[in-house]
Amino acid sequence: MKRIAILGSTGSIGQSTLSIIESFPDRYAVASLAAGQNVEEAFRQAVHWRPAVLSMATAEPADQLSKRLREAGVTGVEVVHGSEGTVRVATLPEADFVVSAIVGVAGLEATYAAVLAGKPIGLANKEAMVAAGEILTAAAREKNVPLLPIDSEHNAVHQCMRAGERGEIKRIWLTASGGPFRNKPLAEFESITVEQALKHPTWVMGRRITIDSATLLNKGLEIIEACRLFDMPPSQVKVTVHPESTVHSLVEYVDGSILAQISVTDMRLPILYAMAYPERPVSDLTFDMTALSQLNFQPPDFERFPCLRLAYEAAEAGGAHTIALNAADEIAVAAFLERAIPFTAIPRTIEAVLEETPETHPTTIAEVLALDAEAREAARRIVATAGRTSAPIGA
Amino acid sequence: MKRIAILGSTGSIGQSTLSIIESFPDRYAVASLAAGQNVEEAFRQAVHWRPAVLSMATAEPADQLSKRLREAGVTGVEVVHGSEGTVRVATLPEADFVVSAIVGVAGLEATYAAVLAGKPIGLANKEAMVAAGEILTAAAREKNVPLLPIDSEHNAVHQCMRAGERGEIKRIWLTASGGPFRNKPLAEFESITVEQALKHPTWVMGRRITIDSATLLNKGLEIIEACRLFDMPPSQVKVTVHPESTVHSLVEYVDGSILAQISVTDMRLPILYAMAYPERPVSDLTFDMTALSQLNFQPPDFERFPCLRLAYEAAEAGGAHTIALNAADEIAVAAFLERAIPFTAIPRTIEAVLEETPETHPTTIAEVLALDAEAREAARRIVATAGRTSAPIGA
Repeated sequence: MKRIAILGSTGSIGQSTLSIIESFPDRYAVASLAAGQNVEEAFRQAVHWRPAVLSMATAEPADQLSKRLREAGVTGVEVVHGSEGTVRVATLPEADFVVSAIVGVAGLEATYAAVLAGKPIGLANKEAMVAAGEILTAAAREKNVPLLPIDSEHNAVHQCMRAGERGEIKRIWLTASGGPFRNKPLAEFESITVEQALKHPTWVMGRRITIDSATLLNKGLEIIEACRLFDMPPSQVKVTVHPESTVHSLVEYVDGSILAQISVTDMRLPILYAMAYPERPVSDLTFDMTALSQLNFQPPDFERFPCLRLAYEAAEAGGAHTIALNAADEIAVAAFLERAIPFTAIPRTIEAVLEETPETHPTTIAEVLALDAEAREAARRIVATAGRTSAPIGA
Repeated sequence: MKRIAILGSTGSIGQSTLSIIESFPDRYAVASLAAGQNVEEAFRQAVHWRPAVLSMATAEPADQLSKRLREAGVTGVEVVHGSEGTVRVATLPEADFVVSAIVGVAGLEATYAAVLAGKPIGLANKEAMVAAGEILTAAAREKNVPLLPIDSEHNAVHQCMRAGERGEIKRIWLTASGGPFRNKPLAEFESITVEQALKHPTWVMGRRITIDSATLLNKGLEIIEACRLFDMPPSQVKVTVHPESTVHSLVEYVDGSILAQISVTDMRLPILYAMAYPERPVSDLTFDMTALSQLNFQPPDFERFPCLRLAYEAAEAGGAHTIALNAADEIAVAAFLERAIPFTAIPRTIEAVLEETPETHPTTIAEVLALDAEAREAARRIVATAGRTSAPIGA
């Protein structure tokens, strides 16, 4: 029986994780949960799963939850809150495995604490790897803790890597859906609207990640994540545009063989893989091979998608540059969603921020957070200037 | 340094094997060679590779080769011949690995002898597995000898199987090019000419295997081979038609993940894989991912390709039935190539032979060869009757 701690239990990955625990009652149980502000859902989860500890993002929802649980006569669930609470959930002695799915840098501290506590991690928090991947992977190596990717692409790479040794890998090929503007002429990019950008052809996701999929910055973050998770230089991590999102990624070996992973686009599959690794339990997440008809692949266009180039540059520089890439993008995307800057100003903002980012390699999470704050500040300044002058940013 | 014995050194697989040994002089050397009737090529190989033993198919070419070597002043190459000679090559104490590439049942005895001598085998002789797979795999298990498939499909399966445990495999998916009649209406099958059937869309191969690719009987033999090599029931070995022959096969796991192997269509790749296993040496057999555009898949049509159904039935019955399938096909294909029977009489002949095949499971190679001879005799009789009466065979 593996007892699971979930960081981000009320989010999409968290709920998928709980659905898997529900499907495999002989294999998995809930140890502890960290939720956000959603008291209603946290209450439901507390009643159903009876975690030893449940953390809310802040004091107010934690108080509300405590009250509701008291009124319902539910005992044995300790309610905590804040980053200390999340760390408590992540490092609970009874937890055998931690699913890290709090988006953004918020989940970073708790994930790092879990690694230091020797917990195997299922990693769905992309930004943690991008902002603090060097620190996290170093700690994981030192503690001999497995970091199992829950991202569908990196999970696919992890599976394909089992067909050979690390030193036998020539390249990793991450597949990209190509987003809604895969075939849009460059001349039309400046006038892309928020509504157009929010329509993703394959996945239904949050707003930032949907825009990141449209700029391919999301694939850029995955390139950096792959470099860190699999200890590969950026030159060995490539992207192939595959609109069907059926092949989740590929690994090319030095002997010329390429292994690819195919499955339904359901996050429960990589979550189950990470939780059960190295075993593969029987699931009903069956891919219908008889319905498979056509798979398309094409090289990515770096001219129309400059975020891809910026990500490679940040990956090469490492340290503060990958932090800045992620932070600047978050600010720029928010500005685009508020219609303060055009679509094409997203990469321009990131590039301008990267240009003033120092060549620093942080060694503590505190340093990471400071650099993150600096980059956000720079991005806000650049976005504001652009909004006032209407001049092209960084052009 | 691995010293290689090659059974079928002057054939296509044999020459590809020698080309790999040439490319990796620090890894591989030639121990011994078994050729056929081609004295010229055997002489060239003897001079270049100086095998300790070289066997020719019969006494006459062996005498010619001995004479040529004497005249050329080449010493240290012992020339032998016949099935005893081939067994000698396969079991030479100095040989560390045996590439079994003599087509048909001719290579069977020597391959079996190599397994009994404890040699790891690179298996390119499909018929050996179809006719005597039960005996060969039992011996390999007993001797703890790896049977590494050199067939591109089974080699792909072997690679994909590394991403999980044997018991975690739900299905094996063999890819089939579909042959030249993939899209031909059933009504036109009766009038298919020899010339039409000999045009294979992807691979250039021998005459029998080209016809077998057109009837999909070749894929049927591979289904049986997969069942034996990987210890899977026929119901777990499926076929998907993939005209590009880029994905060489796939393995579906119980958790819903499918692993696929992609590479250039060059037999040196699976040969190198088998010889180097579990290592993957650096090769120049690079697949150009940036040129990858479209991959198509479709379910096979059992109505137009009855050989597939017959192969599944033979695989279920096992023993004498798989021997008869292979033997009857060889006779029927020869008759088709001589224009004695129409294309559609190939499966009809096989079906008629299978109907009169006993439910026997041979336990010795001698029994296998006897059953093979019986099936050939039955096939010849059925083909001759059909030729005389012009009546549809087995209809």
